[in-house]
Amino acid sequence: MSGQPIDFYFEFASPYGYLASLEIENVAEKYGRTVNWRPFMLGAAFKVTNSAPNMTIPMKGDYLARDIVRCAKMMNVPIVIPDVSPMNSLAAMRAFYWLNEADPEVAVKLAKGVFRAHWAEGRDLSPAEAVAAEAAALDIDANALIEAIQDPTIKELLKQETQTGIDRGAFGSPFFFVDGEAYWGHDRMGQIEYHLEHGGI
Amino acid sequence: MSGQPIDFYFEFASPYGYLASLEIENVAEKYGRTVNWRPFMLGAAFKVTNSAPNMTIPMKGDYLARDIVRCAKMMNVPIVIPDVSPMNSLAAMRAFYWLNEADPEVAVKLAKGVFRAHWAEGRDLSPAEAVAAEAAALDIDANALIEAIQDPTIKELLKQETQTGIDRGAFGSPFFFVDGEAYWGHDRMGQIEYHLEHGGI
Repeated sequence: MSGQPIDFYFEFASPYGYLASLEIENVAEKYGRTVNWRPFMLGAAFKVTNSAPNMTIPMKGDYLARDIVRCAKMMNVPIVIPDVSPMNSLAAMRAFYWLNEADPEVAVKLAKGVFRAHWAEGRDLSPAEAVAAEAAALDIDANALIEAIQDPTIKELLKQETQTGIDRGAFGSPFFFVDGEAYWGHDRMGQIEYHLEHGGI
Repeated sequence: MSGQPIDFYFEFASPYGYLASLEIENVAEKYGRTVNWRPFMLGAAFKVTNSAPNMTIPMKGDYLARDIVRCAKMMNVPIVIPDVSPMNSLAAMRAFYWLNEADPEVAVKLAKGVFRAHWAEGRDLSPAEAVAAEAAALDIDANALIEAIQDPTIKELLKQETQTGIDRGAFGSPFFFVDGEAYWGHDRMGQIEYHLEHGGI
C-alpha cells in the first residue's frame, strides 16, 4: 500500500464537508497518511450534474437540515443551521489558495476557522471582510488578504483546482481520493478507513 | 419508546433500496419492531425535487456504479449492475400492492424476489411477464397477476401510497420513518439502529 496523501475536496457551504473536516486528519494520521485540503467550487460541478445546493432543493432541504443536526449530535460536535445557507464561499476559497501558496498549514488553519465560524457559529463568511476577520486570528494581514482575493492569479488557481477536481470525478462535498479511489460523502468515512487499513475493495 | 412498525419506502430500481432490504428486517426484529414495506414511485418524488435516477446523472452515475459494488462487498452480499438500469418497476410495484391486499407476507416475499432478480442476477423486471415469472416461484398465478397490474383499483392504490410517501417527506430510496422520524439512505442504518436502541436524537 502506498502512503500517498488523501485528497479532500470540499465546499465551505457544505455541512457534510464540515463534519468530514473534523475527522479526516485523525483518520489519515492513524494510517500514516496526510491530507491535501482542496476547496473547490461545487457550483461548477452542479452544472455538469444538473444539481443545486442541497438546502435549496424542495423536500431534500428540509430533511437534510434535520439530518445534519442528527449527524453532528452523533459525533458530539457543535452545529447550527446558518441563516445564510448556502453562503457564497468564493472569497474563502480564494483566500485558502493564496495562503496555500506560502504555507499549506496556515491555509488549513484558515479552512478550519471558516468551517467553524459558519457551521458551529452560524456566521456568514460570504463577504471578503468576514474571511479577513477570521484570518486576522491567524495573524494574517486583512488588507493583503482582501487584495489577494481580487488577484487574477489566485482567481485562476481556484478555477484550475476546481476543474482538476471535476476532471477527476468530484461532484459533491466532501469528496475524497484515496490511492486514486473515489469516495463521496461524510458517510463514507468508514469505507475510507477500511481502505486505509486493508486496501481498496 | 413505542413499538410501532418501521415504514420502509423504496424503489425496486434503487440499489441502495436493495441493500437496505437485506438488513432492515434484522435491525427491526432486534428491537422488537416490524417493517411496513412500501414501494413507491420515486419518479413522482423526482418531479418535486427536480432530480433524476442516479444512474442517468453525469459523473454521479459512474461513481455510484462503483460505490454500489463497494457497499455490497463490504456487506458480503451479491450485486451486479443490471444492463437495464433504471428498470421500470411499475409492474412490480403494482403486483406488490395487489398481493399486499391479501397477504403482506407474500407481498414482501415478492419484493425480495424482485430485488434479488434485479440486483443479484441483473435481470430486467420491467415487463409484467418477468414479474409474473418471479411470482410463479411463490405459487402465484401468472395470469391473475398480469390482470391485476392493469386493474384501476391497484393502479390507484400505488398512486395513493406514493403520494402518502411524498406527503410524509420521502424523496429517495430507501427512505424510512421510525416513530415518525425520517431517515434517508442505506447509510443511515446505523442511526436507525441508534434510534431503536436509545430513541431519536
